[in-house]
Amino acid sequence: MNLEEKYLSREEIYDGKILHVVKDTVLLPDGKEAKREFCMHVGAVCMLPLLPDGKVIMERQYRYPHGRVFLEIPAGKKDCKEEDSLSAALRELKEETGAVPGKVTYLGAIDTSPAILDEVIDLYLCEELSFGDTKRDEDEFLTLEEIPLRRLYEMVMKGEIADAKTQIAVLKVWNYLSNEK
Amino acid sequence: MNLEEKYLSREEIYDGKILHVVKDTVLLPDGKEAKREFCMHVGAVCMLPLLPDGKVIMERQYRYPHGRVFLEIPAGKKDCKEEDSLSAALRELKEETGAVPGKVTYLGAIDTSPAILDEVIDLYLCEELSFGDTKRDEDEFLTLEEIPLRRLYEMVMKGEIADAKTQIAVLKVWNYLSNEK
Repeated sequence: MNLEEKYLSREEIYDGKILHVVKDTVLLPDGKEAKREFCMHVGAVCMLPLLPDGKVIMERQYRYPHGRVFLEIPAGKKDCKEEDSLSAALRELKEETGAVPGKVTYLGAIDTSPAILDEVIDLYLCEELSFGDTKRDEDEFLTLEEIPLRRLYEMVMKGEIADAKTQIAVLKVWNYLSNEK
Repeated sequence: MNLEEKYLSREEIYDGKILHVVKDTVLLPDGKEAKREFCMHVGAVCMLPLLPDGKVIMERQYRYPHGRVFLEIPAGKKDCKEEDSLSAALRELKEETGAVPGKVTYLGAIDTSPAILDEVIDLYLCEELSFGDTKRDEDEFLTLEEIPLRRLYEMVMKGEIADAKTQIAVLKVWNYLSNEK
């Protein structure tokens, strides 16, 4: 069965600082037309910084769309679509936590909401950390906290952490390290 | 440290069929003002339908923003913000796969991209399935496939499944059932 939807035309809705919203007219597999409205995003990276004692450097940050503080792994937007994800990950980790990893393991991509958003977040496990200064964006307010990976795993399994990238990072690293042993 | 951002005013950008985009002016913790552009979404549900032989009913569906076919667990939007998530899950599972579960386990919420989108997806493990007719939306094209949970777990760990809700569902159910034994 052919599932492809073909581009016919585009209506530009909004080209903002972060979001670029468009409404495309597409040709469906049955030959009918339909509208597809979605957000384009530059792409992002997220990092699980693991300390030798099994603790993870976590962030608490206010997420305005949800109106509450989230517990998340460090993450950030790429500077542009073409930016190398690993470079972005090293920059964002340094800026937000001061950490520079000696060992980085790529753990795959995360498509956050593929029906309405083209955002892709690349996920890295960062180990063998050394520390320097942080350098936050001017309108970025966050606090850092060290939490054992085992505790984070339990929180994710109990549904106490809702952020998608953080759930995936914690579960993947937990399983990845369990399988390594 | 206070992290809260306070609403000051709203600019309506776009109120579409699926996306509602706004740009708010907010008061930051340091007293300065900033803009927050984000999408509002009605909310969604996703279901991991597990067969007695350990296989999962999966869907292949074209995700236009990414321009390719995705392998995903069944999922769907709520009819409205107030709709009960469990009712929506049972409706969407029936419509897309024909399955009616005898046992449903809630496995938590997924906030897909909390900085730019208020979407929350509630996740359910669905077991003891019986089958009736499907009833798809008119512009919804998808194929169904049964894949062993073990194989899906390996695919997620290898980075072969990018969809956030599917990664979380597979990893959570895998760990949940492993801990039960």
